[in-house]
Amino acid sequence: MTEFFKNVPVIKYEGPESTNPFAFKYYDAEKVVAGKKMKEHLPFAMAWWHNLGANGVDMFGVGTADKSFGATPGTMEHAKAKVDAGVEFMKKLGIEYYCFHDVDLVPEADDINETNRRLDEISDYILEKTKGTNIKCLWGTANMFGNPRFMNGAGSTSSADVYCFAAAQVKKALDITVKLGGRGYVFWGGREGYETLLNTDVKFEQENIANLMHLAVDYGRSIGFKGDFYIEPKPKEPMKHQYDFDAATAIGFLRQYGLDKDFKMNIEANHATLAGHTFQHELRISAINGMLGSIDANQGDMLLGWDTDEFPYDVYGATYAMMEVLKAGGLTGGFNFDAKNRRPSNTPEDMFYAFILGMDTFALGLEKAAALIEDGRLEENIKKRYESFNSEIGQKIRNHSASLEELAAHACELKKPELPVSGRQEYLQSVVNSVLFK
Amino acid sequence: MTEFFKNVPVIKYEGPESTNPFAFKYYDAEKVVAGKKMKEHLPFAMAWWHNLGANGVDMFGVGTADKSFGATPGTMEHAKAKVDAGVEFMKKLGIEYYCFHDVDLVPEADDINETNRRLDEISDYILEKTKGTNIKCLWGTANMFGNPRFMNGAGSTSSADVYCFAAAQVKKALDITVKLGGRGYVFWGGREGYETLLNTDVKFEQENIANLMHLAVDYGRSIGFKGDFYIEPKPKEPMKHQYDFDAATAIGFLRQYGLDKDFKMNIEANHATLAGHTFQHELRISAINGMLGSIDANQGDMLLGWDTDEFPYDVYGATYAMMEVLKAGGLTGGFNFDAKNRRPSNTPEDMFYAFILGMDTFALGLEKAAALIEDGRLEENIKKRYESFNSEIGQKIRNHSASLEELAAHACELKKPELPVSGRQEYLQSVVNSVLFK
Amino acid sequence: MTEFFKNVPVIKYEGPESTNPFAFKYYDAEKVVAGKKMKEHLPFAMAWWHNLGANGVDMFGVGTADKSFGATPGTMEHAKAKVDAGVEFMKKLGIEYYCFHDVDLVPEADDINETNRRLDEISDYILEKTKGTNIKCLWGTANMFGNPRFMNGAGSTSSADVYCFAAAQVKKALDITVKLGGRGYVFWGGREGYETLLNTDVKFEQENIANLMHLAVDYGRSIGFKGDFYIEPKPKEPMKHQYDFDAATAIGFLRQYGLDKDFKMNIEANHATLAGHTFQHELRISAINGMLGSIDANQGDMLLGWDTDEFPYDVYGATYAMMEVLKAGGLTGGFNFDAKNRRPSNTPEDMFYAFILGMDTFALGLEKAAALIEDGRLEENIKKRYESFNSEIGQKIRNHSASLEELAAHACELKKPELPVSGRQEYLQSVVNSVLFK
Amino acid sequence: MTEFFKNVPVIKYEGPESTNPFAFKYYDAEKVVAGKKMKEHLPFAMAWWHNLGANGVDMFGVGTADKSFGATPGTMEHAKAKVDAGVEFMKKLGIEYYCFHDVDLVPEADDINETNRRLDEISDYILEKTKGTNIKCLWGTANMFGNPRFMNGAGSTSSADVYCFAAAQVKKALDITVKLGGRGYVFWGGREGYETLLNTDVKFEQENIANLMHLAVDYGRSIGFKGDFYIEPKPKEPMKHQYDFDAATAIGFLRQYGLDKDFKMNIEANHATLAGHTFQHELRISAINGMLGSIDANQGDMLLGWDTDEFPYDVYGATYAMMEVLKAGGLTGGFNFDAKNRRPSNTPEDMFYAFILGMDTFALGLEKAAALIEDGRLEENIKKRYESFNSEIGQKIRNHSASLEELAAHACELKKPELPVSGRQEYLQSVVNSVLFK
Repeated sequence: MTEFFKNVPVIKYEGPESTNPFAFKYYDAEKVVAGKKMKEHLPFAMAWWHNLGANGVDMFGVGTADKSFGATPGTMEHAKAKVDAGVEFMKKLGIEYYCFHDVDLVPEADDINETNRRLDEISDYILEKTKGTNIKCLWGTANMFGNPRFMNGAGSTSSADVYCFAAAQVKKALDITVKLGGRGYVFWGGREGYETLLNTDVKFEQENIANLMHLAVDYGRSIGFKGDFYIEPKPKEPMKHQYDFDAATAIGFLRQYGLDKDFKMNIEANHATLAGHTFQHELRISAINGMLGSIDANQGDMLLGWDTDEFPYDVYGATYAMMEVLKAGGLTGGFNFDAKNRRPSNTPEDMFYAFILGMDTFALGLEKAAALIEDGRLEENIKKRYESFNSEIGQKIRNHSASLEELAAHACELKKPELPVSGRQEYLQSVVNSVLFK
Repeated sequence: MTEFFKNVPVIKYEGPESTNPFAFKYYDAEKVVAGKKMKEHLPFAMAWWHNLGANGVDMFGVGTADKSFGATPGTMEHAKAKVDAGVEFMKKLGIEYYCFHDVDLVPEADDINETNRRLDEISDYILEKTKGTNIKCLWGTANMFGNPRFMNGAGSTSSADVYCFAAAQVKKALDITVKLGGRGYVFWGGREGYETLLNTDVKFEQENIANLMHLAVDYGRSIGFKGDFYIEPKPKEPMKHQYDFDAATAIGFLRQYGLDKDFKMNIEANHATLAGHTFQHELRISAINGMLGSIDANQGDMLLGWDTDEFPYDVYGATYAMMEVLKAGGLTGGFNFDAKNRRPSNTPEDMFYAFILGMDTFALGLEKAAALIEDGRLEENIKKRYESFNSEIGQKIRNHSASLEELAAHACELKKPELPVSGRQEYLQSVVNSVLFK
Repeated sequence: MTEFFKNVPVIKYEGPESTNPFAFKYYDAEKVVAGKKMKEHLPFAMAWWHNLGANGVDMFGVGTADKSFGATPGTMEHAKAKVDAGVEFMKKLGIEYYCFHDVDLVPEADDINETNRRLDEISDYILEKTKGTNIKCLWGTANMFGNPRFMNGAGSTSSADVYCFAAAQVKKALDITVKLGGRGYVFWGGREGYETLLNTDVKFEQENIANLMHLAVDYGRSIGFKGDFYIEPKPKEPMKHQYDFDAATAIGFLRQYGLDKDFKMNIEANHATLAGHTFQHELRISAINGMLGSIDANQGDMLLGWDTDEFPYDVYGATYAMMEVLKAGGLTGGFNFDAKNRRPSNTPEDMFYAFILGMDTFALGLEKAAALIEDGRLEENIKKRYESFNSEIGQKIRNHSASLEELAAHACELKKPELPVSGRQEYLQSVVNSVLFK
Repeated sequence: MTEFFKNVPVIKYEGPESTNPFAFKYYDAEKVVAGKKMKEHLPFAMAWWHNLGANGVDMFGVGTADKSFGATPGTMEHAKAKVDAGVEFMKKLGIEYYCFHDVDLVPEADDINETNRRLDEISDYILEKTKGTNIKCLWGTANMFGNPRFMNGAGSTSSADVYCFAAAQVKKALDITVKLGGRGYVFWGGREGYETLLNTDVKFEQENIANLMHLAVDYGRSIGFKGDFYIEPKPKEPMKHQYDFDAATAIGFLRQYGLDKDFKMNIEANHATLAGHTFQHELRISAINGMLGSIDANQGDMLLGWDTDEFPYDVYGATYAMMEVLKAGGLTGGFNFDAKNRRPSNTPEDMFYAFILGMDTFALGLEKAAALIEDGRLEENIKKRYESFNSEIGQKIRNHSASLEELAAHACELKKPELPVSGRQEYLQSVVNSVLFK
């Protein structure tokens, strides 16, 4: 068997002092943090599309990296070479999960029946190659945005026939996800939205999307899929507007259409910021609604208005994210690196540097989040800040036992209230820095 | 009685050829468009705060315009002079509605009981000055963001006492709204949000906001308020994040907390764009959820990241807005000019120029929207675009009578679908221009 | 000879009332506006890349439109079919100019010598096909961003060899531009910038870019090129930062390196807004620096953070642009539609709809700009606004004959000045609307 | 003498383990880093306006903090109380510099002669209170944006009289700056720009601004001012567009008008990001043009579109900034905290927390920047990246001894180049993290 990354050693933890580019500085899989091993806190996943497929192509230039893995792109040989390379890659990094779209796995055929056959073949091959390892599927999904037939959407398409192709792809992707032991199934509505309201019936389209999701749930449950379905919110790109704008919008949609028992959120950092939110905000909104499912671990550029899908390197962001995850008791999914090398980082070594960067960043985030929780000053401040709601009038507000008149009367008696306590934001930011840079 | 705007004549319609700066070029109140008089389609309102209060102050400079109306700011004499000036202003323009916050009407006293007394006095005075006219309240609201006590929010405050002051203000503002014949009551959550998640319990705060709204509905109904309550979404500013981010978020919140029967949306154009949406998008989302209530008619600057509250001048935007309004069968509220003169437009004449601009823009928008609907090409294109859902398989999708397997089988039989029909966006944009510039 | 667009008639002016989708509603080539024919004011150009090359591919999906023109992409037959189709297209629309990158004309070969040979062949073919027509080149350019060799830039590359390839492409593109009668030559620095400052020597790179431009000027002049060189500013995308951020930056760069005698600006509307400016602003900055050269006529989406390259449909924007052009006495270049059909607008008819939209929009813009100038109210207002500089002290300021002390003394004598006159923005916006919607 | 901050001890360095909120965790004034004491690297300054003036007022609410210091705002007693409080504040923190606008120091009178008299009085008082301390002025400036007279700008005003008031204020502010030993003098053009191009003659206004700067230089040199003049770029806010958009624009302007010998840049982090740049970018552009003068040390919120002026807490940003400063050999000015407490941080203690946060952040930035330079991997990578320019052809490019033809010939001989070396961005980001989180 070909070894694709023979110049790259198995990546091990060597600590922050190490200058070995092929070593983890912070990710120590077996190290126990906050009661669990790092690898248990952080079920990392490789995104099949980016890592095995993305070659640096962008809207202004062709690929710069070679992802042929010795085979001819567009063939089943290439599809299998990607499996070989992917498994080798994951083993070297100690990553135990992968995520896929149907068309990441095989070249799409003209006839959907042939595509489905290829999916059967490649999934057999994946099972064979991962037998005896811990490597398994985190979640699967159907790519319903790349093929021209989805130019007006999948669930939101204007064509009933195309809608059926979306259904067919969802069915097959669910089959394969279950076959590969996937924990979850994702809907990312890349074309579920509009280019212009001049030609769009939003209500009609949203009803059709909801229907497709219901059909998927029914089918999934019928074949024994026990995992979560996820919506992955994104506000725009490729479409001018996408219906799953952000977590609040997607959660509202799920509740409106009775899908909230089967679905959770798959939150991507870069999508959060494109929607005008912090990553932490989207995680918090999901968590307090009982819908924090899985994470697409990447990072955007705050000065750029598109999905840059960078490997995460901001330890602040990773720390705040891990605080939300720890407080929510973990994810039902995992941490999928929906991230790609920068276009000029075009060597096989760069692929490893990128994952080391991302895994170390989240390992740091985990340690710092645990340390902040252990430190307790943030939590203590929150408790104190709201403690006036433990007063008599506060209790009445909280248990809804006072009318507007009663509360108003309390105010009129006071005439003028004390100012609330200081938010102490700058002090709290100092606390964060002093824990991060100890 | 003093005449404040004696240099300004009563503003009348003179048609587009007129070069009289004090004439409407497009707004012809009695003209019938799409079956109703312009003034019936367009219940314009004057925003008490901007028109009678805003003097051009911004974060980097003091006021440039004199809004004393001959009295000393901070006194009840000034409050009454504002009533006089406002009524004169509305009469000259033929505007029949106004909107207010409690503290726009009177200077706030140290003791809330005294503030309430002043509100009683001024509302008597308003009723007296508007008796025999058609001038009445469109909607009222309580300012729960300006006073330092609301520095951490009102419904979302960390102080139970401050929460009671919010309740007291809502109660009084509802009393006054009902007294002044208001059609609606608005919640704009200017401080209902957070500066930093480091010190914020989002769930706790959102529950408290919902509770305050429930108390307001209960009280309002008990005193005979039959109108709609409105949430006015805004994503940020003054806070880093505001909970009522956009229409989808606010609608989801209302449904989650059982408030959707009593509340609708008050959509502001500038808030829409700050949230990353078009004005039309927010109107559409509200309308298809049965929640299009009222409109804050203004315009932002798409290159600036704050609420510029400009008078609307973009006829495209006004046309698209009026298409949504016409299709929804009108508003339960009206069109409030939540807009202010640019700081260097500091003369009394500029106040009129601004309203003429805004009213003419929406009059044009109404006429162009009616013409586009009459023209029929846009609607025809939408009908054709989705017509495949009238097919047998399309009908099954729409009435939810086919399973995922059945739809997938249809696709597998087709093997490969026809591409959907072209979106024809450029053609449709030409249609719009040819109707706008006939 | 194949007719590619046989279903499309020759497009003629039929006036705003026409509902014929294949007719101009506003562009009447021979009509005289402001002393010249519309076609003389508006030397429109077809962008070879978008119109003959772009098939709707985006970062999330493959092409939806067929641009093979009956030949196999990647062959010289296809290159020639594009010439045939392009000439037919331009004739049907009455467009007399085209713009090209080297690699739009021919498929790039592995060996640059072969690419150059193909360029000779295709340029012969273009000359042959356009003989006897008015069709000629507006400007040419070298694509120095698509090939992987330019992954770190062209003039700003880290590789001296790659720099030589940039030089070779510029040389050949200049040769071809001159051969095809081009009026201008453009540098768009798509990769001239950085992904991260962590690995970038900005000064070194900028010096190298300036050197390449100097070499291009020297060579161009030596082969008889008399036209303008243009920089086309863009702030970002594909790179994180591009050196030619906006007009002010590019003009500063040209002056710093002594290139300002040979270069002007090619301003693109969508690039302007990505840089945080209006289109009009960039035109104004160029014009007052004597550097308004040519225009890339398109439009972005103000809510999206990437180059959407839409066909222009906003008549406000076109009017403001044409006011700058008329006041500057016209362009040395022309109006190149650097614009593409929306991805779902994938039929040959849509290609024509798009150009009709763009040409009509600029025709409207021209007529409205001329009408605003003729109307005179805007200009009159400006004259009045600054008239205080005709006073004695104003004259001293303008001719630099007063010292700081003397001006200060004048102020101290006044003690407190009158406020400046109102900016009258809302009134002026009404004037604009009343001219646009007459 | 009143002690305003008696509850606050003198702030000392206690190290990262300290949980004393009134201790520096990282700023150790006497500690030597990269060959100099921390306090020499970091000449911190207090901004008179924010620290002694800003009370939390924003566009939607009045102040929350008490900055009366026991006196009545608007009186000279208050002006002196601010001096007392400011000196006490600086002493407690060990800050040796302050920055001021004229109107920060005294309440502005109706008559400019009286304002000037007050400035004489207060500057005497400051000198008296700071005698025997190390406290002195970093830079002064004139506030030419707050007074209504500047509603259309100062140098760019439409009124010749107002222009003279600008001149008078600049003259007096220069006098006071020199008297207080100021190192520099700043122009921030808060109103030097436009609200709308409909009423603006950009060229006329820019010429007038340049003239005012020339007059200021002439006067300043005549009274013995030896320091730098600075432009502080900002793209917008309060104006829709400000002429000093960013460093590149301001530098181009200075060169165009012959002001580049006397002026340098004062770069503010928050202004950089509002312009679409990183803080580091603006520092780099200034440095490579020999124009890195001084720094306004603050931080914006990347998701908000206005100047939030937060105290800096992002150690990444501070590290990258300090790398630019160290490589440039330091500043001619210093680090002015143009930053304010968040509105809900309204206690005197919060004022100290904020400065401790900012000073510690920059101390960390300094240490980390020095460590990264010492580490050498970043620099080494840059050297290697561009080393091909040491080749023969590379040298010819660099010393401009080859023509376009010669470089082209080199390419044609190569036929196809090697790809440039990888940018290694992800590896470099790992290096940064491993130095930051050692």
